Amino acid sequence: MVDENFRIPISARIGRHVVIEEGVILGENVRIGHHSVVLAGTVIGHDVTVGCNAVLGCQPYNNARVTHKVSKQEGLVIGNGCRIGNGAVVYAGTELGEGAMVGDLASIREGTRIGSSTVVGRSATVECRTRIGSRCLIQTGAYITADMIIEDDVFIGPEVSTSNDKYMGRQPYKLAGPHIKERASIGNNATLLPGIAIGRGAVVGAGSVVTQDVPDGVTVVGVPAKPLSANRSGTSKGGQ
Amino acid sequence: MVDENFRIPISARIGRHVVIEEGVILGENVRIGHHSVVLAGTVIGHDVTVGCNAVLGCQPYNNARVTHKVSKQEGLVIGNGCRIGNGAVVYAGTELGEGAMVGDLASIREGTRIGSSTVVGRSATVECRTRIGSRCLIQTGAYITADMIIEDDVFIGPEVSTSNDKYMGRQPYKLAGPHIKERASIGNNATLLPGIAIGRGAVVGAGSVVTQDVPDGVTVVGVPAKPLSANRSGTSKGGQ
Amino acid sequence: MVDENFRIPISARIGRHVVIEEGVILGENVRIGHHSVVLAGTVIGHDVTVGCNAVLGCQPYNNARVTHKVSKQEGLVIGNGCRIGNGAVVYAGTELGEGAMVGDLASIREGTRIGSSTVVGRSATVECRTRIGSRCLIQTGAYITADMIIEDDVFIGPEVSTSNDKYMGRQPYKLAGPHIKERASIGNNATLLPGIAIGRGAVVGAGSVVTQDVPDGVTVVGVPAKPLSANRSGTSKGGQ
Repeated sequence: MVDENFRIPISARIGRHVVIEEGVILGENVRIGHHSVVLAGTVIGHDVTVGCNAVLGCQPYNNARVTHKVSKQEGLVIGNGCRIGNGAVVYAGTELGEGAMVGDLASIREGTRIGSSTVVGRSATVECRTRIGSRCLIQTGAYITADMIIEDDVFIGPEVSTSNDKYMGRQPYKLAGPHIKERASIGNNATLLPGIAIGRGAVVGAGSVVTQDVPDGVTVVGVPAKPLSANRSGTSKGGQ
Repeated sequence: MVDENFRIPISARIGRHVVIEEGVILGENVRIGHHSVVLAGTVIGHDVTVGCNAVLGCQPYNNARVTHKVSKQEGLVIGNGCRIGNGAVVYAGTELGEGAMVGDLASIREGTRIGSSTVVGRSATVECRTRIGSRCLIQTGAYITADMIIEDDVFIGPEVSTSNDKYMGRQPYKLAGPHIKERASIGNNATLLPGIAIGRGAVVGAGSVVTQDVPDGVTVVGVPAKPLSANRSGTSKGGQ
Repeated sequence: MVDENFRIPISARIGRHVVIEEGVILGENVRIGHHSVVLAGTVIGHDVTVGCNAVLGCQPYNNARVTHKVSKQEGLVIGNGCRIGNGAVVYAGTELGEGAMVGDLASIREGTRIGSSTVVGRSATVECRTRIGSRCLIQTGAYITADMIIEDDVFIGPEVSTSNDKYMGRQPYKLAGPHIKERASIGNNATLLPGIAIGRGAVVGAGSVVTQDVPDGVTVVGVPAKPLSANRSGTSKGGQ
């Protein structure tokens, strides 16, 4: 079932000990680093570069404690010109747009759509069924929960944390991640609560805890986050 | 000393380039993904599934700057029905209960006990000598410090941070991690200080900084975290 | 171009399926775990231990969305006695001082200097061109941004987050990371804004958001962080 020499174009540059399972499709000029694994059903476009030790196209799994059960996914689709980092893990059933980049040791779950030229930083984690637009920067170590919507040109700073379960598993709740509208910017290590909306071009200050919707173009800071004009009591400089 | 064909039951499904060192014991119906490494002394139960690129049973190491010196550990024990993710790292001297799950790129240090059906999420990190009960959810990117006690049915949200050294290495101090009692829930990106206790069924709001004990059943939010009833001044919705 | 048997001293202990590219230089008594990859141009000192699945000496890459373009780097230099963890990723153009330790699943970008005996914890991420002194502890999951200066004997707690772009990509800005002076301590999950200075021996409380400079020897806590003496209104115990 596993065949290292399966359907590999002449133009491909494949590292040592790479595993490419049956049914994988590779475009032209693909580079895959040493020890990477490309699992059955993955479709890789032209001019894609994959680092070493990456795992592409893995299937989700279930556990007694996790209520949302997952089923077998269709293949992972990696667009032309994408760059996948060393040690990254990307699941089946996900699509990466043209020129997207996935950093080293980042992981992206099943059923997610990532737009063109978007960057998912090193060690960032993206949960299942999330939609991320084009030209977004999801920075290092950020956590993007399931069922989120992130529109185009959004900036999400390092170690930002999001959530989608208001009751933390204590009672039934329709999971709802934040909705971040186009051109919004979220400062590093900010915390976003379930179901809130961050407006177009809005700005969330670094370290803020956002507990309610932020209107278009408004800057909020603090814990809980409040509009900047109502918050000029101390030393905060807002921004990031 | 290394032998890929050492003591592997007929029922095992082993990927390409897997390394299984001498003295490893495998149960029935074990699956191990491509490139994973199972080091000497590891005991794997029945029906265990391991992803690709995992490292199981590694020994701890010392450094001049780390004061707590570690010694050679006994083998890692993985219970029946466990699921270990891609790229996960689990040390020797640790035990995983039946049906526990370790997410992709998570790491668990030596001397730790994880209860049955508990989930340690993707990219979560668990330090040494910590006790985690059964049916806990330790979510993506959470940091569980050394010498913590986490009882049964605890929820720890994404990117929660804990600590065990009140003086941050500036003076001698008996390391003491937080004690989180059964059914407590910690919101995403909350910060817990050393030595505090979180009571049974207590709730810590997302982004809160917890500097003192939280009684059973009480919800706290804010920086520093205070009981919710004393904190209804603004926009906080509490919960997670 | 790739040769597993290239210039490996008799004293080396090399695991299974290790890839050592041409032009790598190994000192005496080097140990490299299974499946690790050492890329062209890497120089490894004496008595260095590398775990399994590590990737050493990788080149940076560019993306349309990332404004700072990177060029080809000289080799990675790993000092005598260093310890590199399982699954760690360290880029070319970086230097690790004697006895430094890089934790499992940590990653360090190009052009960085790490001093002797410094520890970069598990899953920590260090960006490019940062200078870190000797005997520092950068704890698990911390994020160290680009262009930072961290002096000697600094403690950075778990999941601390830093930033270097005041405008989050919305307008041109000379990137400037925080400057952390010798013997300063940063509590876990604290957030540091761009361009600030943390004074010698200063202390930042856990979960604090630091928006302006902290003088030598001063302890700050809260959001935004203020000196401890001006902040004794509630339950904060400061410290970490």
